[in-house]
Amino acid sequence: MLNFRNGLADMPSYDVVERDWKIKVNANECNMNLPPLVAERVMSRLSRVAYNRYPNEEENALAEQISRNFHVECENVCIGNGSSEIIEKLFYAFGGSSEHKIVYPEPSFSMYGIYAKAAEAKGVPVPLDEDYKLDIEKFIKVVKESKASMAVICNPNNPTGSALTLSEIEYIAQNISCAFLVDEAYIEFYGQTAAGLLQNYPHLIVARTFSKAYGLASCRVGYMLASKEIASMVEKAYMPYHMNVLSLAVADICYQMRQEFVPHIQMMISERKRMAKELKKFEDFIVYPSETNFLLVRHPSAVKLNKALMEAGIGIRSFGNAPRLENTLRISMGRREENDAILNFIQGFFEGRV
Amino acid sequence: MLNFRNGLADMPSYDVVERDWKIKVNANECNMNLPPLVAERVMSRLSRVAYNRYPNEEENALAEQISRNFHVECENVCIGNGSSEIIEKLFYAFGGSSEHKIVYPEPSFSMYGIYAKAAEAKGVPVPLDEDYKLDIEKFIKVVKESKASMAVICNPNNPTGSALTLSEIEYIAQNISCAFLVDEAYIEFYGQTAAGLLQNYPHLIVARTFSKAYGLASCRVGYMLASKEIASMVEKAYMPYHMNVLSLAVADICYQMRQEFVPHIQMMISERKRMAKELKKFEDFIVYPSETNFLLVRHPSAVKLNKALMEAGIGIRSFGNAPRLENTLRISMGRREENDAILNFIQGFFEGRV
Repeated sequence: MLNFRNGLADMPSYDVVERDWKIKVNANECNMNLPPLVAERVMSRLSRVAYNRYPNEEENALAEQISRNFHVECENVCIGNGSSEIIEKLFYAFGGSSEHKIVYPEPSFSMYGIYAKAAEAKGVPVPLDEDYKLDIEKFIKVVKESKASMAVICNPNNPTGSALTLSEIEYIAQNISCAFLVDEAYIEFYGQTAAGLLQNYPHLIVARTFSKAYGLASCRVGYMLASKEIASMVEKAYMPYHMNVLSLAVADICYQMRQEFVPHIQMMISERKRMAKELKKFEDFIVYPSETNFLLVRHPSAVKLNKALMEAGIGIRSFGNAPRLENTLRISMGRREENDAILNFIQGFFEGRV
Repeated sequence: MLNFRNGLADMPSYDVVERDWKIKVNANECNMNLPPLVAERVMSRLSRVAYNRYPNEEENALAEQISRNFHVECENVCIGNGSSEIIEKLFYAFGGSSEHKIVYPEPSFSMYGIYAKAAEAKGVPVPLDEDYKLDIEKFIKVVKESKASMAVICNPNNPTGSALTLSEIEYIAQNISCAFLVDEAYIEFYGQTAAGLLQNYPHLIVARTFSKAYGLASCRVGYMLASKEIASMVEKAYMPYHMNVLSLAVADICYQMRQEFVPHIQMMISERKRMAKELKKFEDFIVYPSETNFLLVRHPSAVKLNKALMEAGIGIRSFGNAPRLENTLRISMGRREENDAILNFIQGFFEGRV
């Protein structure tokens, strides 16, 4: 006689266990581990952790460091278990009933719809145009007409790779008055952050992650920049001691040493450009413009190609029958030699060699 | 025009920053860091982490190891960010409206009331008797009459230290049919776990933590044993990648090497016995029986004593004006020399020397 929360049984569960890929480019990870200088400092720090003590000032220390970089106050920064936890808690904070509507583009990060449901808000997807461009006038109209409590944009967008310009983001901010989350998980590969707009638009929220450009997906650390009012409400939604000391310590060192990650980021950008150029050479291959560390491609034989890649131990991301993503594949940028192997394989596939 | 979730503004927020105590016995932590053999293996493992990869099989690996120890299946185990996340998500899973009632004793772990509110359930506290004993007939009656969706017992209880026997727990399980969570955060100091009852009572749930006996409070790892149905619902309530690899790796090693922690646990138990005996010697000092790694004491001058301890750099836990906890202090067991220093200080306080 178990009386569960209404709707919980219909939620999906995540038990993602990966195969042991030879080349893994399916999760938009950075395919390089920590730079050696960083790794050395990380290990030294981890050897000095008081494992037996509850987290104390580590979360504030990281928030302070980030606040200094953005010229905001510490109270404008929240740290989370990946930007995932920040997004989850923002949806919680602006959700609570089906009268609370949360608007986001589609296709975009697939979790937006699920977090809306978990927060008992009503998710309102706005379809992207052909070529995955967001019609910002349409977006603004839906936000206004639905009287949304929050609007969300992933910029640059996952899984399409497309980006809005900073003036487009500002135009949206000017024209809506509800909370406006810009999820900048891939911003380091693009550069046009909305963080500079925060001062003028107190309803704006910027979410960031250490999982992509900083290559810390294992650690689950992200952060949010927002008004003190919004930040304090997210803090209320957190459980005490939600962050662990080890991840905070690693993120703190990586943020201090962020110059060490610039070569990784530049490499991923230049590989994306090279791969886009190379992939376009294959017949019927559409490569969508990308400002991220991955490429979305479309081909009539995408399903067969994905199957062949999998059999060869190369993991890329297929979206199955997800609306608007039929026959597409998402390839994150591996190291140069990995990308060469992928190109070779695809060439072999089209030449009937594999 | 920010449209937040109803009730969120009234929630407390947690921004616990500790002072730099000379002796810290205020959070029921283990006052010893990792045993040397364990620390060595932990550091070796952390040096081999693929920091750039999302968590993969680490959560399942820990769940499997735990399931083997308890002779249950892997699907009966959930891992969480401390038992906190498990409790939060159980309250979420059995909450959702004020018709969903969650019953727990009071005083007990103060977060139960807050998690109930966050889950939009109605928290129903059942007052403990004089001497902090739970009247189990009364508890069962409240669970039945309120048609609760979940009943919660912290056993042994925080902050009182008192424990129900295994037959009392079984008696409750026999007489209620809703979900029944036994929060065993301190069970390693007591021994009478309800885990063996799980087979016969599918509505029973046991929550455990690595924060106390294993001294891993920094890492935030806990686990839950329950029926596959309940475990799968908790998994639905988790966000993807909720656990980080570092904490999972450390917990995995500590669990493998759990024999190394037995001397720590035995020391904390024998110090608790010694401290109880010594503290009872002070006039008007009530020391409540405890089956944990801490003692709850009562004295008419508790407020003054706490202030004096703080000024001396000794952090113990006072509950302010919390109902039923006036004039009480909670002291977790430090290392022997720390406990001696505390005893000396209290003696000095009563002799007017401090």
